[in-house]
Amino acid sequence: MRREGGDMTGSRPGSPLGLHRVLEPAGVLPQAAWRLDASPGLWPDEVRVRVERLNLDAASFRQLREATGGGAPAMRAEVGRIVAERGKMQNPVTGSGGMLTGVVEETGPDSPLGLVPGDRIATLVSLSLTPLVITDGLADWDGRSEQVPCQGRAILFGRSIATVLPADLPGPLALAVLDVCGAPALTGRVVSQAAGRAGGGHPVVAVLGAAGKSGSLSAVAARRAGAGRVIGVVPSEAEAATLRAAGLADEVVIADARDPVALAAAVHGAGGPAAVTVVCVDVPGCEGGAVLATADGGTVIFFSMATSFTAAALGAEGAAADVTMLIGNGYVPGHARLALDLVRCEPGIRGLFEARVTEGARDGKVEA
Amino acid sequence: MRREGGDMTGSRPGSPLGLHRVLEPAGVLPQAAWRLDASPGLWPDEVRVRVERLNLDAASFRQLREATGGGAPAMRAEVGRIVAERGKMQNPVTGSGGMLTGVVEETGPDSPLGLVPGDRIATLVSLSLTPLVITDGLADWDGRSEQVPCQGRAILFGRSIATVLPADLPGPLALAVLDVCGAPALTGRVVSQAAGRAGGGHPVVAVLGAAGKSGSLSAVAARRAGAGRVIGVVPSEAEAATLRAAGLADEVVIADARDPVALAAAVHGAGGPAAVTVVCVDVPGCEGGAVLATADGGTVIFFSMATSFTAAALGAEGAAADVTMLIGNGYVPGHARLALDLVRCEPGIRGLFEARVTEGARDGKVEA
Repeated sequence: MRREGGDMTGSRPGSPLGLHRVLEPAGVLPQAAWRLDASPGLWPDEVRVRVERLNLDAASFRQLREATGGGAPAMRAEVGRIVAERGKMQNPVTGSGGMLTGVVEETGPDSPLGLVPGDRIATLVSLSLTPLVITDGLADWDGRSEQVPCQGRAILFGRSIATVLPADLPGPLALAVLDVCGAPALTGRVVSQAAGRAGGGHPVVAVLGAAGKSGSLSAVAARRAGAGRVIGVVPSEAEAATLRAAGLADEVVIADARDPVALAAAVHGAGGPAAVTVVCVDVPGCEGGAVLATADGGTVIFFSMATSFTAAALGAEGAAADVTMLIGNGYVPGHARLALDLVRCEPGIRGLFEARVTEGARDGKVEA
Repeated sequence: MRREGGDMTGSRPGSPLGLHRVLEPAGVLPQAAWRLDASPGLWPDEVRVRVERLNLDAASFRQLREATGGGAPAMRAEVGRIVAERGKMQNPVTGSGGMLTGVVEETGPDSPLGLVPGDRIATLVSLSLTPLVITDGLADWDGRSEQVPCQGRAILFGRSIATVLPADLPGPLALAVLDVCGAPALTGRVVSQAAGRAGGGHPVVAVLGAAGKSGSLSAVAARRAGAGRVIGVVPSEAEAATLRAAGLADEVVIADARDPVALAAAVHGAGGPAAVTVVCVDVPGCEGGAVLATADGGTVIFFSMATSFTAAALGAEGAAADVTMLIGNGYVPGHARLALDLVRCEPGIRGLFEARVTEGARDGKVEA
């Protein structure tokens, strides 16, 4: 496996899935690996990126903040330790990662990604499978934002999706949108299918965490896909006011998504139960409430990385609820373009994201 | 909350979901609770059952065996400790439970379940939400079978599904079938939908763990629902021989489901990729392989309680795989009848289950 930087492009081809970078345990995919080889030499189909910024996923950021107390030195040390130990930024507690932006430094001769050196890109595969080395000790990060200024290098595999950052949107805004772009794409698809079914009509859609990043985009995508009524659920009056001002939901209700009875009552009272419920909150324990808020024959899409598989499966069974439950796949063809278009065309979304990016930079607030 | 046995039927109505039995944390559903009130007095819509046998789910049984070493005293002590502490049999590591059989002892006046004292029943909701007291120390359990002879009592809520045990099938056989009856029902539904789609034709279905209980039933259900080719994946030559003899799959291949490359190659070599992949193995780490074995636009159904939500979501994203991933809901209307009918009508299934029940009683072997 040993090789020097930049001189391996003539060697045997790597796996498009990056299996050749897995150090332990042997034979698993990079996402499931404990440790990756993040050395800079490229296999023929790889791309090396000079990293500028990491975007930690919401569940991971919350866990890190709670575990370390949130101070800058402790946050820097913990992220640095994880990356040094694992060769990737995968939170060992949540299992999740995030994404990054940077500039293409070198491309292998067989890379299928269509990138050229100098392209400023965002990765659309998780940091949890992206070989990464940090070289600046995260000195410019205050620990209070999920967006982490970072110098280092990362490796993309043949099948690692990446997108060139749009010229017409500020970088931090685009990064925040692309981080969650799978959610509106899958929500739109599921709502379209529900609307297209015999008797589907204009389905009621409930979005839990509708004032957050994935939630607000999902709410807009649901409306565009034919939802008859979008119910936005938020935990506080402040978020309710934000969501109302943005005009992204037909009904805005306040409920704790971890309280199944209160959540179901709130959704029912706002015109539910929902034909489609979208879970975009980054705290554990929302599975039961999501199931109870959903009509028989309906669908729950879980995007939160804090979702428990067992709690969802057994919770639905325990309530004798005939609901389809989807694991939110972060990849849907065309997802990046769709999400960026939503931000370009929907002033409410753009305002909400701009406020969030600014606010995050100012006081470290973070939302899923 | 305090009350004496049998005298509460005139009091305020309980929640059909059993919320009134949750001791901590307050406000969650019984499945998500740490501790339930398992006292014998009935709320008006409850039913009390004299327990005869527990059926631990495969992931939980495996974990208990590995953690304790599998000896009878240690297994009895550990299950006894969990039930005494939590008021239910929910494995704290896997989060999963199982089911039980017993005889109806008393029914509240408002119970909607249609049971009468003396009915011999099986619960179709998980033990992870069923109030339970064990009174015999599990003295008759040798610790080597997931079927646990047990004296005690359990409580059913208004919405707890239960079924009267069929008179024409031996009890242990019926219990083994009912334990996994959600899997064939949901598999059949998904395969029917795939076959019904434009261009769906007769979809290829791969079943991982096809010689096990949920796997073998799912394979038969897939064929009945219109699968063009059923590929059964098993880990060993012994299981392959069993599956071939039972005639439940069109192709039988041997592969380790935790090795994504080997698994995908085996399924592709047998006529895949699969339009529908059904995961019925009880070990962790099968998410990536299941995704890679599935065609773009296809569906993966995860029934294994060892499934990691994060690994599935990020694994699919990391492979840029446009697959729909379902959390296997254990409840589908009509699931018990469907599964029992499969055992009655398919000699291959019946033989396989009979051998498994006998073998389990003999040497403690257990399969998902």
